[in-house]
Amino acid sequence: MPKPIYVLNGPNLNLLGTREPEIYGKHTLDDVAAVAAKRAGELGLKCDFRQSNLEGELVTWVQEAREKGSGIIMNAAGLTHTSVALLDALQAADVPIIEVHLSNIFRREDFRHHSYVSKAAVGVICGLGAQGYALAVEAMAGIVDSK
Amino acid sequence: MPKPIYVLNGPNLNLLGTREPEIYGKHTLDDVAAVAAKRAGELGLKCDFRQSNLEGELVTWVQEAREKGSGIIMNAAGLTHTSVALLDALQAADVPIIEVHLSNIFRREDFRHHSYVSKAAVGVICGLGAQGYALAVEAMAGIVDSK
Amino acid sequence: MPKPIYVLNGPNLNLLGTREPEIYGKHTLDDVAAVAAKRAGELGLKCDFRQSNLEGELVTWVQEAREKGSGIIMNAAGLTHTSVALLDALQAADVPIIEVHLSNIFRREDFRHHSYVSKAAVGVICGLGAQGYALAVEAMAGIVDSK
Amino acid sequence: MPKPIYVLNGPNLNLLGTREPEIYGKHTLDDVAAVAAKRAGELGLKCDFRQSNLEGELVTWVQEAREKGSGIIMNAAGLTHTSVALLDALQAADVPIIEVHLSNIFRREDFRHHSYVSKAAVGVICGLGAQGYALAVEAMAGIVDSK
Amino acid sequence: MPKPIYVLNGPNLNLLGTREPEIYGKHTLDDVAAVAAKRAGELGLKCDFRQSNLEGELVTWVQEAREKGSGIIMNAAGLTHTSVALLDALQAADVPIIEVHLSNIFRREDFRHHSYVSKAAVGVICGLGAQGYALAVEAMAGIVDSK
Amino acid sequence: MPKPIYVLNGPNLNLLGTREPEIYGKHTLDDVAAVAAKRAGELGLKCDFRQSNLEGELVTWVQEAREKGSGIIMNAAGLTHTSVALLDALQAADVPIIEVHLSNIFRREDFRHHSYVSKAAVGVICGLGAQGYALAVEAMAGIVDSK
Amino acid sequence: MPKPIYVLNGPNLNLLGTREPEIYGKHTLDDVAAVAAKRAGELGLKCDFRQSNLEGELVTWVQEAREKGSGIIMNAAGLTHTSVALLDALQAADVPIIEVHLSNIFRREDFRHHSYVSKAAVGVICGLGAQGYALAVEAMAGIVDSK
Amino acid sequence: MPKPIYVLNGPNLNLLGTREPEIYGKHTLDDVAAVAAKRAGELGLKCDFRQSNLEGELVTWVQEAREKGSGIIMNAAGLTHTSVALLDALQAADVPIIEVHLSNIFRREDFRHHSYVSKAAVGVICGLGAQGYALAVEAMAGIVDSK
Amino acid sequence: MPKPIYVLNGPNLNLLGTREPEIYGKHTLDDVAAVAAKRAGELGLKCDFRQSNLEGELVTWVQEAREKGSGIIMNAAGLTHTSVALLDALQAADVPIIEVHLSNIFRREDFRHHSYVSKAAVGVICGLGAQGYALAVEAMAGIVDSK
Amino acid sequence: MPKPIYVLNGPNLNLLGTREPEIYGKHTLDDVAAVAAKRAGELGLKCDFRQSNLEGELVTWVQEAREKGSGIIMNAAGLTHTSVALLDALQAADVPIIEVHLSNIFRREDFRHHSYVSKAAVGVICGLGAQGYALAVEAMAGIVDSK
Amino acid sequence: MPKPIYVLNGPNLNLLGTREPEIYGKHTLDDVAAVAAKRAGELGLKCDFRQSNLEGELVTWVQEAREKGSGIIMNAAGLTHTSVALLDALQAADVPIIEVHLSNIFRREDFRHHSYVSKAAVGVICGLGAQGYALAVEAMAGIVDSK
Amino acid sequence: MPKPIYVLNGPNLNLLGTREPEIYGKHTLDDVAAVAAKRAGELGLKCDFRQSNLEGELVTWVQEAREKGSGIIMNAAGLTHTSVALLDALQAADVPIIEVHLSNIFRREDFRHHSYVSKAAVGVICGLGAQGYALAVEAMAGIVDSK
Repeated sequence: MPKPIYVLNGPNLNLLGTREPEIYGKHTLDDVAAVAAKRAGELGLKCDFRQSNLEGELVTWVQEAREKGSGIIMNAAGLTHTSVALLDALQAADVPIIEVHLSNIFRREDFRHHSYVSKAAVGVICGLGAQGYALAVEAMAGIVDSK
Repeated sequence: MPKPIYVLNGPNLNLLGTREPEIYGKHTLDDVAAVAAKRAGELGLKCDFRQSNLEGELVTWVQEAREKGSGIIMNAAGLTHTSVALLDALQAADVPIIEVHLSNIFRREDFRHHSYVSKAAVGVICGLGAQGYALAVEAMAGIVDSK
Repeated sequence: MPKPIYVLNGPNLNLLGTREPEIYGKHTLDDVAAVAAKRAGELGLKCDFRQSNLEGELVTWVQEAREKGSGIIMNAAGLTHTSVALLDALQAADVPIIEVHLSNIFRREDFRHHSYVSKAAVGVICGLGAQGYALAVEAMAGIVDSK
Repeated sequence: MPKPIYVLNGPNLNLLGTREPEIYGKHTLDDVAAVAAKRAGELGLKCDFRQSNLEGELVTWVQEAREKGSGIIMNAAGLTHTSVALLDALQAADVPIIEVHLSNIFRREDFRHHSYVSKAAVGVICGLGAQGYALAVEAMAGIVDSK
Repeated sequence: MPKPIYVLNGPNLNLLGTREPEIYGKHTLDDVAAVAAKRAGELGLKCDFRQSNLEGELVTWVQEAREKGSGIIMNAAGLTHTSVALLDALQAADVPIIEVHLSNIFRREDFRHHSYVSKAAVGVICGLGAQGYALAVEAMAGIVDSK
Repeated sequence: MPKPIYVLNGPNLNLLGTREPEIYGKHTLDDVAAVAAKRAGELGLKCDFRQSNLEGELVTWVQEAREKGSGIIMNAAGLTHTSVALLDALQAADVPIIEVHLSNIFRREDFRHHSYVSKAAVGVICGLGAQGYALAVEAMAGIVDSK
Repeated sequence: MPKPIYVLNGPNLNLLGTREPEIYGKHTLDDVAAVAAKRAGELGLKCDFRQSNLEGELVTWVQEAREKGSGIIMNAAGLTHTSVALLDALQAADVPIIEVHLSNIFRREDFRHHSYVSKAAVGVICGLGAQGYALAVEAMAGIVDSK
Repeated sequence: MPKPIYVLNGPNLNLLGTREPEIYGKHTLDDVAAVAAKRAGELGLKCDFRQSNLEGELVTWVQEAREKGSGIIMNAAGLTHTSVALLDALQAADVPIIEVHLSNIFRREDFRHHSYVSKAAVGVICGLGAQGYALAVEAMAGIVDSK
Repeated sequence: MPKPIYVLNGPNLNLLGTREPEIYGKHTLDDVAAVAAKRAGELGLKCDFRQSNLEGELVTWVQEAREKGSGIIMNAAGLTHTSVALLDALQAADVPIIEVHLSNIFRREDFRHHSYVSKAAVGVICGLGAQGYALAVEAMAGIVDSK
Repeated sequence: MPKPIYVLNGPNLNLLGTREPEIYGKHTLDDVAAVAAKRAGELGLKCDFRQSNLEGELVTWVQEAREKGSGIIMNAAGLTHTSVALLDALQAADVPIIEVHLSNIFRREDFRHHSYVSKAAVGVICGLGAQGYALAVEAMAGIVDSK
Repeated sequence: MPKPIYVLNGPNLNLLGTREPEIYGKHTLDDVAAVAAKRAGELGLKCDFRQSNLEGELVTWVQEAREKGSGIIMNAAGLTHTSVALLDALQAADVPIIEVHLSNIFRREDFRHHSYVSKAAVGVICGLGAQGYALAVEAMAGIVDSK
Repeated sequence: MPKPIYVLNGPNLNLLGTREPEIYGKHTLDDVAAVAAKRAGELGLKCDFRQSNLEGELVTWVQEAREKGSGIIMNAAGLTHTSVALLDALQAADVPIIEVHLSNIFRREDFRHHSYVSKAAVGVICGLGAQGYALAVEAMAGIVDSK
């Protein structure tokens, strides 16, 4: 069995479905996890899906994924725009990284247009809601395959 | 009994009274809590007064206040100027928020002039020391009342 | 009897209650004056409450307050963001100054985020409507007392 | 008889015709008033044409126009670029506003390219000299009509 | 018979009337052409009214207008803000130029506040809809006359 | 049969496969078209796949897609960063838009970090090569379905 | 007898001698007027020395100096940095202008480093206190002489 | 016979000799072509000399030069400063490129100081009029020889 | 025995030796601790050497060092550039602080050129690898001695 | 006899009188020296008047003036805007410094608006030609006297 | 015999041929001088070729060239980007100036994109190595001839 | 015997000990030289310690160090922030470079936060006074050893 894909979610994503649904949609984080797991299953893969409000815990998970994961799908939420520590961890991770956002961050406030995560990611998918996670899993499968 | 007002304090405020008293005054954080509790008591209210050095813990408390609080009085200290994650939590909180600072941040270094918390707050009180907390409690009472 | 607190209001505040009520609320400037006077009365103080559309007249009133006032509560309205002349007067005033705004200027247009008045003020209260004036009077009482 | 159109002119426009004629043309302010009055007359309208060097007086006239005018044609001259107080008055005015400049401000110094008045105006006419006032009167007639 | 006034319209203006009517109004480009032609007729003039989505074609028309036109009324739409090539053509054109916009570009997104066309134009009219074209024709008549 | 998805490609993408393969990969544009068509076929949809070096032609195609397409997948290449005209067309298009880039534009030169297309797009997919087009087709299918 | 030199002083300069003496020195404005008058007398000239807190009054005095003065010595105080209206008046004045400041504005806050008055002045004297006015009178005498 | 040098000229250069001769000189584009051809002939080379007002046509010619040219001498005129599409084509071209301008762009307006073409060019020659083309041909000969 | 020197290390430094060795060298964090301890031993001092991925934990350790340490050597890693909370803790610490970085941050990406830690540090040592820690220990010994 | 006033002149001032006389006037540097010497003589003082094109030589002279001069009048010419080394020397000089410029640098190119010399100077005199040196000598006499 | 062309070279160019040959090529400065002299000889001209590491010496040579030279070819090396003093000298020089750089400065670090020399030069040649000097000599001959 | 380490000091450092001792300490430059020599002696090395106020002389010494030195310790003082010529020399030097400053330049004025020297240096030591030179010598020994 291949190593799982780490799907890491940042602060406040645990509120999904109840928080500002006009921006983030009606799906809960469990729904999103199910969407990702389903597509992974279809491709013979597995996801390790987690959420944390702590920057340092996310850094530690990225470090863990270096050893135990085949790739990282990262939705760093508010930390996307501010965390150099997370960028450092990702740049050291040595597995493929895909950045995901539920909303199109480029149509929101200016301070959400800049992403430290992008500097370490192969690609970016944003604005496509829960489905964006399924697409990211499929893209990750392609990248891991082609190695 | 109404839900309590969450009074949340950010990093280093546990040092109050000993740290740079020419900027922050001689009151300890316990003194500040007492000032807030007294005014709340006069108005038939209660405060839930907390402090943390961890951004993620503050995010979690804001999420808790959505359910269990009638409002949030937030002194995010150094995180005021840098935490998009905290802003995201506050914008999702759906209870009235008042931002407080002990010192007048607009007369200090430039990087303290910008506040992410302000974007989610009804109002701001700064530079009035411990008394600022009492005023914030009174203002919060007025806002909650008028709902 | 102590010297009165000067409560000085800048351009267009005479329109209060009729102008853009979704931003500035339904209170007229007379209502605001009454709110301030009431709190001052409870604390054994008096307010001298004025409004002008003329920058130069406000400068002259600030100069007058140096002699005849115990403190200045200043809502400079549109001049907040542009008047160095007013700042010069306030810096020369040598009595405590508290800046007040009815709305939360930090959630409005960018050019309203910068305040010259803040550079001369002990503290700032904004976004709390007419009640903000009462809180400012109370804070001023505390500051004058502690001298 | 309909309410008059307020045509308000800012600092130094009383010098028109003598001051830097290569920029502002040879017409005096009386000539400009006549041009505006003539076109208004043809359309069955009346202008109330005024000039002041005082920002506060212009603010007061804009407040008056809220009550007694059908629209405001505003050439704020040097105050165009600096007066938030005037912008506040205009935004509260609740009658249509057309901004006029005699010269093309976009071909002059950089600090003349930004206008606070534009933020409150339906439209802008600049660089067309005294004739620009006639065109503004005609445009105002059209706007008032379509209400 | 005098040379015609070139009235040149840039990309997407062919969609007028159907595209975002809350910004651009309900008039089609044909309606606008009729408004311009009517005013021109009253003044004994003729308009040559054209639209193109191609920057190069607009440049070529401006070059043609140097020879065959008495003036240019230019609504460069999206190219207003980006086309140095168009500015070069206009600066070489040697006939009077008036810039027109249907909407008030100064109340829209920041990137629409800067205009290359303004650097070559005698004057600017914006925010006055189809009527703005009629006013531009009249202004052009005055300028051409006074030569 | 539903209306086709317009897949529109900007300048130089006809060189794909031969131009800087270390950035853009070894696939030709025909390969990319095949990838998109295949996924569309699996979902019962059709793509109308085109490329042009002319900004004006792309504007025209976007206008055409308003009528005849169910959605637009847009890789505007170099025009992504400069074309306000294209943005105007996309904002008028009234069908869902997904922005695609072969490479991760956020890891390339600074001038490639800003996109006008993003302001009109539901979502963005970048850095995932030809596969990104397949994912965009799938996302478009989901969006069209949910209407 | 030649026309007098207008010596015009802006807001707050009436406080001189009492206000922040560590910046502005111990001389009152009357002392400064005497210093200027004495030097003028030695050179067979006369000063017309005035102060106002009102921008509009200063504009009007500059307009008056066009007719009745031989030159203008201008200390615009806080208006130096903000008043385009004053600059417009000075550029229209057509008599030589010398800018004076009591303190060295280039060693104070950043917002005091920019002067609109400088754009219309022959020269600038700053940081030399009351003596700076005497030097300005002497320089003006030289300029007027050489005409 | 070696492949020809492509000498490609952008918008408005067809006006050469008639447009603003104080900046661009009295030579027509045909004169410039003759100057380039003469120097090329002396060195046993041939030029393919073209001009277009269309960005897309220039992109196509650059693509053609990849196959059929030995080098590109590019005067992109107004597109120099704005066209990322042209830069993309030039970076893909894989033949040596020399940038030429008739005038010294660094002594003109600020927006002419930045060039996208420079990022792909071996060298730059500007301000030397038609002679600059001859020098570019000679430099190109040297570069091609040394390969 | 004197109080120990706190040597505090930020996020991802636990990966040292395995992560991007071309930037950070081959030493592990244990090696670095040994280098620091050795030099401290030679000088009769002791180090308390720690690492954390959590900003809040580092803040708490700095607060602890106020009481129990003689000085702080701080390598805040990615938090160097973003953490105002850490700066606040350091400014309150009241013991000497030396900032250390393994790599020369001034030759890396722009966002690594700014340090909040520097504002509270006596001095900075960067680019000298593990040896930099030994030098910092020696410098700290000198500073503590001279008190 | 008191110590002399050092009058130090920077690069290219040896060309005075021949170089761009419409900016710098017709006086040679010897004329300027004579003007300064004459006023100094009237006040019982002496000038040591020098010019150098070498930054390092000016630094050395400023160091010499610490010991042997009573004050420094500095016209640093082009080095005014760029030399931190000269600023360091002036800040260490411990004698009063007056900055002089022949032309009004605030009406010239932008890069001449910033002066490092101002940060170390008591006052600034500019735009008053050779006479500015006489005024500077007189001002220096006053400052030295009042010590 | 005509006056010689001054070919002036700034700091570090004496290292040519040994310093970073992948940027500056393998020619020594003597080789470059020979290349320039040869082309000058063919055109009946002479070069006076010099190098200095001292800014002040270059200023002095430019001053000398005003009298004794027919033109200046200037490669100011690192001073290109920082020396206002050199610009002042060149602007006073009153002979034609051509700026030369061996490498294409516009493809190097950002701070090399700005040149003070360009503000005084007729034209610029860069990126063409030693041959660039020959081309500059030929261009200078043409300019001098046409006078 | 190994080649000496060049320890090069820029403008005004000859004043050390007398100039602003609260910033630069009480040590003279001779003291600093002794501190460096002592540590070098302990490590079997020698320093060649020099100071100059002339940028060009420092450039020449750096060029000399390429041949005759084993490394360069550079305190460029005021030239740190402005000299591209010095940077060019250092980048060509091909021996290891360590940058030293006596004070912590990151806590001083903004214009001292940027260093050209850093771009060529292995590492930086600042704020540690004379001891910083000893540490730099030791670090240099380590670097030279490891080659």
